[in-house]
Amino acid sequence: MRSAAERGRGSAASQTVAEVIAQAPAADWQAFDQSNLLYLTLADNSRVVIALAPDFAPHHVANIKALTAAHWFDGLSINRVQDNYVAQWGDPAGNTPGSPTKPLPPHVFAKLAPEWERTVKGLRLTPVPGADGYAPAAAYTGAAWPIALDPARGRAWLAHCYAMVGVGRDNASDSGNGAELYAVIGANPRGLDRNVTLVGRVIDGIEHLSSLPRGTGALGFYERPSEQVPIRTVRLGTDLPPAEQLHLETLRAGTPSFAALVAARATRAEPFFVTPAGHVDLCNVRPPVRRVGVTG
Amino acid sequence: MRSAAERGRGSAASQTVAEVIAQAPAADWQAFDQSNLLYLTLADNSRVVIALAPDFAPHHVANIKALTAAHWFDGLSINRVQDNYVAQWGDPAGNTPGSPTKPLPPHVFAKLAPEWERTVKGLRLTPVPGADGYAPAAAYTGAAWPIALDPARGRAWLAHCYAMVGVGRDNASDSGNGAELYAVIGANPRGLDRNVTLVGRVIDGIEHLSSLPRGTGALGFYERPSEQVPIRTVRLGTDLPPAEQLHLETLRAGTPSFAALVAARATRAEPFFVTPAGHVDLCNVRPPVRRVGVTG
Repeated sequence: MRSAAERGRGSAASQTVAEVIAQAPAADWQAFDQSNLLYLTLADNSRVVIALAPDFAPHHVANIKALTAAHWFDGLSINRVQDNYVAQWGDPAGNTPGSPTKPLPPHVFAKLAPEWERTVKGLRLTPVPGADGYAPAAAYTGAAWPIALDPARGRAWLAHCYAMVGVGRDNASDSGNGAELYAVIGANPRGLDRNVTLVGRVIDGIEHLSSLPRGTGALGFYERPSEQVPIRTVRLGTDLPPAEQLHLETLRAGTPSFAALVAARATRAEPFFVTPAGHVDLCNVRPPVRRVGVTG
Repeated sequence: MRSAAERGRGSAASQTVAEVIAQAPAADWQAFDQSNLLYLTLADNSRVVIALAPDFAPHHVANIKALTAAHWFDGLSINRVQDNYVAQWGDPAGNTPGSPTKPLPPHVFAKLAPEWERTVKGLRLTPVPGADGYAPAAAYTGAAWPIALDPARGRAWLAHCYAMVGVGRDNASDSGNGAELYAVIGANPRGLDRNVTLVGRVIDGIEHLSSLPRGTGALGFYERPSEQVPIRTVRLGTDLPPAEQLHLETLRAGTPSFAALVAARATRAEPFFVTPAGHVDLCNVRPPVRRVGVTG
């Protein structure tokens, strides 16, 4: 056993990640609201659950909810899986030559102004100390959203960490609408921050995307339609029978437990670790998500 | 079209990544030596090629070469695939209860002192500017190895970027020997730096590891032997018939082309990018690897 002095830098860091999670009181957990959960079900009935982020991208989230309500995604497919980068689904045009775009339902906007950043006002934060590199500061907010910050301008934006979900677009900034979405399945492509509108993150079942065969075409697009992975349905949680809803919670940013998590990730107290990093980057905080209650 | 002033911060950054790669002269590329390539062939004949790093972990690399020469890995399996973390293979004991360790061949050490860092002397570097967070400085060296640096101590170490290969161990620092290896298949777990001996990186075929089904046991271990992914053979390049060798090159660190690559990744000149990050983290430099000549 190592002494507390060897293991930690202050009291918080003497806890392991598992201890922080086990000891977090109920008040430090936050349940995800079914009205902001997308359930993406693939042909083999595997299910990916995405938490939407209306506090960051209200117009894009509204568009995606309208597409979902119209069952617009049903029968489309995952069209692109690029190793160490993204899995992308939806709009059949994608980059497939000659493939038509599926007509959008009424009340869905074909173009939307980018929602790349917002005011930092109203956000309850747990800072991630130390240099971020990509931004003046980094933090988590709310239901464990990773954000970068520019305090001088009072602005905040979602960061491209593993499992984040964004809106595919063409070169024009306003060319995305949510009909083509991607999830990050590789090392955090932070260079995309403030270049693409992020709308949420996968909170359950990311392995059904990250373990898909990689596309062999340019940018990881599947070269043959037979390789595309069919989507059975996309539904909002509130449109599912209660028995099919998944009840998930995450550690809430701005709580003592979340600060302890960041400290425990920066200076690992587990006996395996010999050389403490004394630092954790934004994306490697990896907030826990747990299932609660009776689940489908 | 955006003007050069809008696109870049200096001349190097006005090039796209593709332009840097296309314009790199032959002298800025470095071929991988077959004597330091491991060919890991799975049951379905898919092939993963790993470049070894004897300049950083000479004793572990020697052990791995001795295991390979004895065909010790043949018939073993990939035992662990943890999402957003690692794929691990080799030693059947792993963490499988009741599973015996396969006896080691002669001339293979059962324990080795850690090789977590080395002197910076003799390394030709391309710095990765800006804050690293985990270390005082970051750079690439030689055949595109990502390293962290402590200039004050004159020390350098390999960094846990995507595709890096390391030596599994128990809690004791000297308990690894190369009989159990892992490849990083997720967001760069830099907190492992200087806690595990890194011995190389996957330079071809990482998708055969990263797209494997995730293990459902603790730490991503496969729960049933039937889930384990059999290894057909592991061979050193020099032990393969020439027709089965793969000839690969990477951009060499310390060259003008490599500095241009780092700049092009930090400030993307492609028309898709609107908000330049002006920064790239060590792991996101993603040096190119290309196949050359007649390959198997």
